[in-house]
Amino acid sequence: MPAPSPTSRELVVLGTASQAPTRQRNHNGYLLRWDAEGLLFDPGEGTQRQMLLAGVASSAITRICVTHFHGDHCLGLPGVLQRLSLDQVAHPVGVWYPAGGQEFFDRLRRCALYNDTADIRPHPVPLGGLVDPGPEPFTLLAARLDHRTETLGWRIEEPDGRRMLPDRLAAAGVTGPDVGRLQREGSLITADGREVTLAAVSEPRRGQVFAFVMDTRLCDAAFALAEGADLVVCESTFLERDADLAAAYGHLTAAQAARIAAEAGARRLVLTHFSQRYPDESDFSAEAGEIFPDVVVARDLIRVPVPPRTG
Amino acid sequence: MPAPSPTSRELVVLGTASQAPTRQRNHNGYLLRWDAEGLLFDPGEGTQRQMLLAGVASSAITRICVTHFHGDHCLGLPGVLQRLSLDQVAHPVGVWYPAGGQEFFDRLRRCALYNDTADIRPHPVPLGGLVDPGPEPFTLLAARLDHRTETLGWRIEEPDGRRMLPDRLAAAGVTGPDVGRLQREGSLITADGREVTLAAVSEPRRGQVFAFVMDTRLCDAAFALAEGADLVVCESTFLERDADLAAAYGHLTAAQAARIAAEAGARRLVLTHFSQRYPDESDFSAEAGEIFPDVVVARDLIRVPVPPRTG
Repeated sequence: MPAPSPTSRELVVLGTASQAPTRQRNHNGYLLRWDAEGLLFDPGEGTQRQMLLAGVASSAITRICVTHFHGDHCLGLPGVLQRLSLDQVAHPVGVWYPAGGQEFFDRLRRCALYNDTADIRPHPVPLGGLVDPGPEPFTLLAARLDHRTETLGWRIEEPDGRRMLPDRLAAAGVTGPDVGRLQREGSLITADGREVTLAAVSEPRRGQVFAFVMDTRLCDAAFALAEGADLVVCESTFLERDADLAAAYGHLTAAQAARIAAEAGARRLVLTHFSQRYPDESDFSAEAGEIFPDVVVARDLIRVPVPPRTG
Repeated sequence: MPAPSPTSRELVVLGTASQAPTRQRNHNGYLLRWDAEGLLFDPGEGTQRQMLLAGVASSAITRICVTHFHGDHCLGLPGVLQRLSLDQVAHPVGVWYPAGGQEFFDRLRRCALYNDTADIRPHPVPLGGLVDPGPEPFTLLAARLDHRTETLGWRIEEPDGRRMLPDRLAAAGVTGPDVGRLQREGSLITADGREVTLAAVSEPRRGQVFAFVMDTRLCDAAFALAEGADLVVCESTFLERDADLAAAYGHLTAAQAARIAAEAGARRLVLTHFSQRYPDESDFSAEAGEIFPDVVVARDLIRVPVPPRTG
């Protein structure tokens, strides 16, 4: 896997259209860079090329999560899987998806002839809940959303940890490899015989949380996924003036997405998956902004940082 | 079907990359407008959106021809088929493809969940030859090429006909609906009792021919497909300096494509399906131009007219 970079928690937006792409918006596609991991969500048709345009190598992908098997959320999967083989990516790539869509996953995986050498590990998810407890650096959770077909939202939870305090480490005389040992073992005896505990030279550090919520009507699972998240990507196919259409087709309005972020105590909201019927994206930020302050209306190829940790 | 327009024989180039797309080149995709018909060849991933960028509605598609089931020639098929349903296209759309790829066609057709309402008519082609004798305005033929998997090139042949000569029609006193009747029936008796034959008021008109040749090594079928064609679209993945790679991977060089066009007596050659290893497309026109004069190096979204009929 690629080495982690200190500033590498960000969302790379690959596509932002809903059912029909537009001149400005490709079908869905979102790469979350999370230290050494790269999680690709909902690769719609054209994701392979959008990655090229965004400067994302296929080797950056470590996991793929699919919410459901409508075409705008999965037709880019064959191209991505085939590209992993073509590029001889050596690390395993897990793919998580609703178990009810197994037949579609199987077809997508083998819908063209290629030299299938990549280490692809399918993970059909039957019920939601904790789907991957690790290994570190996070747990992956899923929750059933309320759409027209079996659909899962995704949540990444980094465990709470401790932030080392350099001045206290220096005062305690803990340096070099001893810092790592102290983190792993919780305490150590220094060369001059003093015991130093982890608690004495560090402070609690809250783990970060990312949530991916689409496609869905307003439902409890959407709030649960977004609970306390640092960054929430949420579909807002419609505006509130078309709330009846949103309900009929199993989608959210910008105001509903903002309500989820606000009531869940999230920190930053990225709106996406826009219906082509709305020419002016500022309508989305205006509608959501009245309810939740930190709103980003996604455009193709933008990058949205995960907000820095809070104290 | 859409009404024919008098200037509607042209190739709309949707994508021109080979295995890997580039910033400038999407995967394959070619729409041949032929009067009231629209034949989509080798829809690679992203074809649906390239059609939007090229101003081609899904309703313009009347037939789809796939040469083979490598991903760069077919991963756009699901999006196109699903779009035909979404757009409620009412006319039937036939899909012709090598019979050996039936399993891939079946998976591509049902690899995502959608409301499949379009009238899609699969035509697996086992051996090549005449695959659709009509109805007018053309016959569709296939020939086995020499690639790494079962691959068919395509040829459209318009039957020879007759061009009506307005001055002779006027001199013979044939006007209005009688012109059509004369064309259908071969002769008629005018109001003043004279017999007029079709031969007397028209001249022979040679039917037009279009050929689509990819992916292949140099082989007899490639020449046969291009025989006397007005417009030939031919892959030229490589330049002659990499002729060994071309042979190894089952592809053509620009010089070989030009040889096909020249020896087959074709009129215009469109080169496409370029390896990303070549940054300068003028190398392709230079290499082919030494062998065949009317060469177009395809770029995404260009339109190439079928050359006007010759006398």
